[in-house]
Amino acid sequence: MRLQFFSKKFKKVGMEPGALIHIGQTRVQEPVMTILSFSPEDVEEKATKNWEECCVYASQARVTWINVDGLHQVDKIKKLGECFQIHPLILEDILNTDQRPKFEDMGQYQHITLKHLTFAAEEEVHSEQISFILGRNFVLSFREQGNQVFDVVRTRIHRASGRIRRCGAEYLLYSLLDTVIDQYFLVLEQIGLRLEKVEDEVFTHSSKETLHRIHLYRRNLLYLQNVISPVREIVTDLIECESMPVDETMQAYWRDLRDHILQIDGAIDNCRDFLASTTDLYFSNVSNKLNEIMKVLTVIATIFIPLSFFVGVYGMNFEYMPELHWKWSYPLLWAFMISVVSGMLYYFRKRDWL
Amino acid sequence: MRLQFFSKKFKKVGMEPGALIHIGQTRVQEPVMTILSFSPEDVEEKATKNWEECCVYASQARVTWINVDGLHQVDKIKKLGECFQIHPLILEDILNTDQRPKFEDMGQYQHITLKHLTFAAEEEVHSEQISFILGRNFVLSFREQGNQVFDVVRTRIHRASGRIRRCGAEYLLYSLLDTVIDQYFLVLEQIGLRLEKVEDEVFTHSSKETLHRIHLYRRNLLYLQNVISPVREIVTDLIECESMPVDETMQAYWRDLRDHILQIDGAIDNCRDFLASTTDLYFSNVSNKLNEIMKVLTVIATIFIPLSFFVGVYGMNFEYMPELHWKWSYPLLWAFMISVVSGMLYYFRKRDWL
Amino acid sequence: MRLQFFSKKFKKVGMEPGALIHIGQTRVQEPVMTILSFSPEDVEEKATKNWEECCVYASQARVTWINVDGLHQVDKIKKLGECFQIHPLILEDILNTDQRPKFEDMGQYQHITLKHLTFAAEEEVHSEQISFILGRNFVLSFREQGNQVFDVVRTRIHRASGRIRRCGAEYLLYSLLDTVIDQYFLVLEQIGLRLEKVEDEVFTHSSKETLHRIHLYRRNLLYLQNVISPVREIVTDLIECESMPVDETMQAYWRDLRDHILQIDGAIDNCRDFLASTTDLYFSNVSNKLNEIMKVLTVIATIFIPLSFFVGVYGMNFEYMPELHWKWSYPLLWAFMISVVSGMLYYFRKRDWL
Amino acid sequence: MRLQFFSKKFKKVGMEPGALIHIGQTRVQEPVMTILSFSPEDVEEKATKNWEECCVYASQARVTWINVDGLHQVDKIKKLGECFQIHPLILEDILNTDQRPKFEDMGQYQHITLKHLTFAAEEEVHSEQISFILGRNFVLSFREQGNQVFDVVRTRIHRASGRIRRCGAEYLLYSLLDTVIDQYFLVLEQIGLRLEKVEDEVFTHSSKETLHRIHLYRRNLLYLQNVISPVREIVTDLIECESMPVDETMQAYWRDLRDHILQIDGAIDNCRDFLASTTDLYFSNVSNKLNEIMKVLTVIATIFIPLSFFVGVYGMNFEYMPELHWKWSYPLLWAFMISVVSGMLYYFRKRDWL
Amino acid sequence: MRLQFFSKKFKKVGMEPGALIHIGQTRVQEPVMTILSFSPEDVEEKATKNWEECCVYASQARVTWINVDGLHQVDKIKKLGECFQIHPLILEDILNTDQRPKFEDMGQYQHITLKHLTFAAEEEVHSEQISFILGRNFVLSFREQGNQVFDVVRTRIHRASGRIRRCGAEYLLYSLLDTVIDQYFLVLEQIGLRLEKVEDEVFTHSSKETLHRIHLYRRNLLYLQNVISPVREIVTDLIECESMPVDETMQAYWRDLRDHILQIDGAIDNCRDFLASTTDLYFSNVSNKLNEIMKVLTVIATIFIPLSFFVGVYGMNFEYMPELHWKWSYPLLWAFMISVVSGMLYYFRKRDWL
Repeated sequence: MRLQFFSKKFKKVGMEPGALIHIGQTRVQEPVMTILSFSPEDVEEKATKNWEECCVYASQARVTWINVDGLHQVDKIKKLGECFQIHPLILEDILNTDQRPKFEDMGQYQHITLKHLTFAAEEEVHSEQISFILGRNFVLSFREQGNQVFDVVRTRIHRASGRIRRCGAEYLLYSLLDTVIDQYFLVLEQIGLRLEKVEDEVFTHSSKETLHRIHLYRRNLLYLQNVISPVREIVTDLIECESMPVDETMQAYWRDLRDHILQIDGAIDNCRDFLASTTDLYFSNVSNKLNEIMKVLTVIATIFIPLSFFVGVYGMNFEYMPELHWKWSYPLLWAFMISVVSGMLYYFRKRDWL
Repeated sequence: MRLQFFSKKFKKVGMEPGALIHIGQTRVQEPVMTILSFSPEDVEEKATKNWEECCVYASQARVTWINVDGLHQVDKIKKLGECFQIHPLILEDILNTDQRPKFEDMGQYQHITLKHLTFAAEEEVHSEQISFILGRNFVLSFREQGNQVFDVVRTRIHRASGRIRRCGAEYLLYSLLDTVIDQYFLVLEQIGLRLEKVEDEVFTHSSKETLHRIHLYRRNLLYLQNVISPVREIVTDLIECESMPVDETMQAYWRDLRDHILQIDGAIDNCRDFLASTTDLYFSNVSNKLNEIMKVLTVIATIFIPLSFFVGVYGMNFEYMPELHWKWSYPLLWAFMISVVSGMLYYFRKRDWL
Repeated sequence: MRLQFFSKKFKKVGMEPGALIHIGQTRVQEPVMTILSFSPEDVEEKATKNWEECCVYASQARVTWINVDGLHQVDKIKKLGECFQIHPLILEDILNTDQRPKFEDMGQYQHITLKHLTFAAEEEVHSEQISFILGRNFVLSFREQGNQVFDVVRTRIHRASGRIRRCGAEYLLYSLLDTVIDQYFLVLEQIGLRLEKVEDEVFTHSSKETLHRIHLYRRNLLYLQNVISPVREIVTDLIECESMPVDETMQAYWRDLRDHILQIDGAIDNCRDFLASTTDLYFSNVSNKLNEIMKVLTVIATIFIPLSFFVGVYGMNFEYMPELHWKWSYPLLWAFMISVVSGMLYYFRKRDWL
Repeated sequence: MRLQFFSKKFKKVGMEPGALIHIGQTRVQEPVMTILSFSPEDVEEKATKNWEECCVYASQARVTWINVDGLHQVDKIKKLGECFQIHPLILEDILNTDQRPKFEDMGQYQHITLKHLTFAAEEEVHSEQISFILGRNFVLSFREQGNQVFDVVRTRIHRASGRIRRCGAEYLLYSLLDTVIDQYFLVLEQIGLRLEKVEDEVFTHSSKETLHRIHLYRRNLLYLQNVISPVREIVTDLIECESMPVDETMQAYWRDLRDHILQIDGAIDNCRDFLASTTDLYFSNVSNKLNEIMKVLTVIATIFIPLSFFVGVYGMNFEYMPELHWKWSYPLLWAFMISVVSGMLYYFRKRDWL
Repeated sequence: MRLQFFSKKFKKVGMEPGALIHIGQTRVQEPVMTILSFSPEDVEEKATKNWEECCVYASQARVTWINVDGLHQVDKIKKLGECFQIHPLILEDILNTDQRPKFEDMGQYQHITLKHLTFAAEEEVHSEQISFILGRNFVLSFREQGNQVFDVVRTRIHRASGRIRRCGAEYLLYSLLDTVIDQYFLVLEQIGLRLEKVEDEVFTHSSKETLHRIHLYRRNLLYLQNVISPVREIVTDLIECESMPVDETMQAYWRDLRDHILQIDGAIDNCRDFLASTTDLYFSNVSNKLNEIMKVLTVIATIFIPLSFFVGVYGMNFEYMPELHWKWSYPLLWAFMISVVSGMLYYFRKRDWL
């Protein structure tokens, strides 16, 4: 996940603006285009490698959804852009997979870029960029790689009774965005569970590993905040977008989506705050342990160092040491030492060190 | 309380927006509907399990308050929604008990969701979601579970002389909200008392437990802030809501409610600030204790380690050690050692270590 | 001061809004009303227990100032409210002495609530709530208890030449507010002096007490900020209040008052920042002390523990230890030990430990 | 510098607003007024003690600059105020040298108060209040004490070719403000140099003194921010001031001045951030030193305490201890002890403690 | 890099505003002017030392780009300014290389100042000021020193097919700014790589050097934020600039540039947050190391100090010590001591100290 924090636009540095270059890993062998065109009455779906086919859908009355998986064949994307009259700067953004999530209103169509997130097994957030173009009767979606996240929407379109068949392209876009944003809840839930585990660990058996894990989750949350907080602006921009027809029904859906984003945003803040509190606890545990250790050392040393001195005294070899020849010296010394130890133990207990 | 921090919307992920699903625990066996319809002259109240009955109240001139306790029977809620023409997205929000508090103006009616809070015996804030629908002549309220919080309002309605009988649905909603928000003061007062106990503890006998308690209250305050701060926006939106008739008398009441929320909000901020200061004190105590321990260790070690060396010297078995045969060696050594100890004690006292 | 941090509205929880109840301590035996009515030509002043008398002043051409000391006799306040047609919610606020400072424009009159602060001998800020009602020709002021703070204004009214006699009720209100806010400067000055004492203490002889004092002042400043920062809004609202006639002369006075509040606000921020810096210093002192202690321990232990070992060697009772029988063993050992000590002292001095 | 942090308005508490009292130290024996009146053709300059003279300049066509050094003779200031029809509240602000920097538009004239700063030899920022009144054809400036800061402007006025002679009073005010603000750069540069010295100190030989110095500079920066940040608002208010004629040429100058203030503001922020980072370094050094000390103690104690035990064993006087009588016991013990020490040294080196 | 934090405007303090003085180092021997004038059909380029030549381009229909490398010959810059009618204050800003990045709309032309950044080999950000003047048909650019950053734009102009030849001066300015801002990505990438190295270091072998490096990068990021964040405002001002013709095509380009700046801004924030988390880790490592050291000391001291006492007891020379004469005393003592050590080891292992 490391490099995701830092921009990698350098492949493009010095090139003409609007020049099309794919930035990112090639995650799929061959880009695949799926065309799904529907009206309330029927649905037509096909996957194709001959991308010219899609141009006929640019001005149909039916609603068309064209999904592209794989972005590394720049020529094909360019042709697609020409069919639907997409501005080169927009295509440039779609191809640059380090894009910050954003909304752009181009009048004839709207452009949205955001991240699809999953919580991978190796305890890290895995992200994939998804871009949408919303035209009057079509939605274009671009993904780095095929995954199952849009399958629920596809199923709903095929079901004749669904609302999605009767509504237009805007509702289709809403359904797709809603699916992507729903994944954010899943990711946050995973992280939430892990945070609670870390908290338990801190309470019971915190080790050096614990702090490394805290540091790791902090990085993950930082990343999440980076890619999720711009989505709030995106949805707000969509609600206020002047180029789109004001449709009261859709407004309710968009507002609902914004509420979801607000909820996620708040949950991230909570997680961060919670992590900060857990870190404090961790450091306090470290300090407390040090105190414990020092207490043990102090008790032992404070008891035995003076005793060692006393027995040292009677280990001296002076010729004239009267005590050495007294009969009760030895038992008296023991009695003295035992009383010293008792006094010290009493003192330590009073100060709560034992 | 743990999971309340993190969203649990996953039961719904991938479903069509507006699909009705109850999210949350089932806290009551059978949902109960209570209908209370009143005019300045008379009051009619009944509890019913046959929810169709309520539909007749949708367009009456009398003010009607329909309260539902228990949300897990989705069908019934759906029917109720159809009677009063509630949008499916709103019903979805009512059924999702992880909802962020919010206000939604739907033109014909207004929707409010917020949390009812109580401070449970087990030292944790317990929350329950309450949703309201305000129509022209009716108020619908939805709770997860029956509790006594609305009983004072019910009593006031039955009292013929009360202002509530003469005013409309908006004043009824205000009375209900006021009751819910009044509970926030009680919760905050409980936490405030606990914070002061923790502060006392830190001053007198802080232990490891103290920090755990601080951590717990911090979580509680975080949760409170999450569910209370959106309520401020809700009341502001209500004041500025264009779909509701501007009624000067009601404005004064809403402003009063907003003042209460501001006061609660400020109190939460104070609590957090106070907790931060207390945490500082706690850590300083830990450090001071370490210093005390180290002082004791240092004083003991510094006095007796050199003395042990001196007695060690005269424990050596060299053949030619003239001091061993002198008559006054032993008392002289004692005198020397006593003067060394006195000097050290003087030094320690001067440095404020004793 | 403790409980001032947390709201105590619970006496009212569950009651009808606008129901009049006194919340707070009863600080005076019998409420006293003082009526002061003046025109440029003459002044009339009387203290009365028969509160009905005041009703005649509600619609006089002369400017009237009615001051009430003591709020626990709710009936009297209610009657007063009826004479001057004050809204029940406003009276409720006046009686609730836990009110957050606020301004309310009721069209016919304006309502202001704020705190009067004094720095009591026991090192704590003492607060008392003062409420004002500004009508066209009258000012009502409500205090929990009689004190001398308004005496300067009273004296100025009695002086025939003063500007206050020639101006109307708004200037009277301004004079009273100005008197209250001037007290804030005195309180802050007291705290400022104490902060400097604490700083001196930290530099010279910080003890555990010092941090307790820092904690105490932090609480005091937190409280001050809570009750003073809303006053800024109050004055701003007064300046922009549409129901009051725009009077250019008064505007200059209100702006002057706002500047004072800004100055106080800034001074509180400074104090908090200063306190934070002092706390850092304190903790650094604690750490430095620990370092000092550890240095002494280390120096002593590092010098004498090895020496003890060497003398221990020659305290052994082996039959075959050639050194024991050499003539110069003993002085040579002393020479060796002295050189070891010298070397160590040199090393310690080089590392700046001595 | 201490008391500058806290307001000292108490001399005035309880007085009538607009009452003129000088608050501050008397820094000059006798106030001096300097009148400088000029037109593009000629300049007239005189210093006078008879302040009535200045009244004739109140309504001349020539541009007049009247500078007053010394504010403690309130009567004279009052007379001056009457000549130029200055509002008593403005005069009150001019005489109160604890004033927060501010701009006030009085319609006929504008009032500006700010601080003139110098970095004194004793490592502290020294401040002096300067107030300006800008009328249509005159500028009044009030200072606590004479200094050379305005001399450059005076020289420029005497030079016939300068732009200042051809422009009006507004450009004169701009020139004076520019001179005052330029001094801020000098002060910041001095502090910047000191911060770098402190940083060097932390890297090489930090002592207790270092933190005291950090604390001192933090106070200085706090003070600077307090008196400089309101100046930004002042300049913005000047740019947007409606009572002044909109003069495109002047706008460019004012914007330039605002840029300077923004630059200074940014530099203060940088200094504070830099200081925070340096403080972290300092504390880390303290911790590292403690670690070093503890390492030495641990290494010495860990090596010699076990050895002392071994030699102690053979110092026992039991009758039946076979080892005592073996021939090779003594050299064998040495060999054993040397190998133990070697093993420990190896272990310490591996753990990076040596 | 040090002094870049603090303003060095002092060379100008006290001078007339608009007086032209070069502030900064002289980085190039002789200033060079390069004139590049083009139309869609042809390009004309020349480098000249006779700066009067450029005046003819001030009012041509062709687009002209005049680049100046080296700012220390003030006279030449002044002449250039007169040709193109540039305001003296703008020239002053161009010559002051400590300028904060800014945009100024002068109606006839627009002025932009920003920094060109490179990450130098010695691990520090190196900055150079670049100023632009955008007129109707010309762009002037001023640099402290020649470098290759504009060469890509020059090459694109020479290429007949490029978009830059067909568009006007605004697109030329955009291309130049885009080139400068692209360098910011490179600098951030370098820092990002270093931050990850530091993180690795903290995880594996943090030393005192590590914190010094963290401090250094913190300073670098602080500097970057200072010079980059005003650029966002610059681009926003450009988008909203009323004096420039609203050109829909250009708007898309400027918005794209703003997105880049937002991305860089976000990356800097991430870096700082990341650095903060790494610093926490570092300090925790220091604490953990101390704990480790103390554990070793405690274990050793706690085991051997009591043992030393026991052997000391039997080193005493009392005449009447019965144990000394028992046959099994010595082996029994060993057995006792071994069992004590075993018990302690068991205790230490249970407390996780070994």
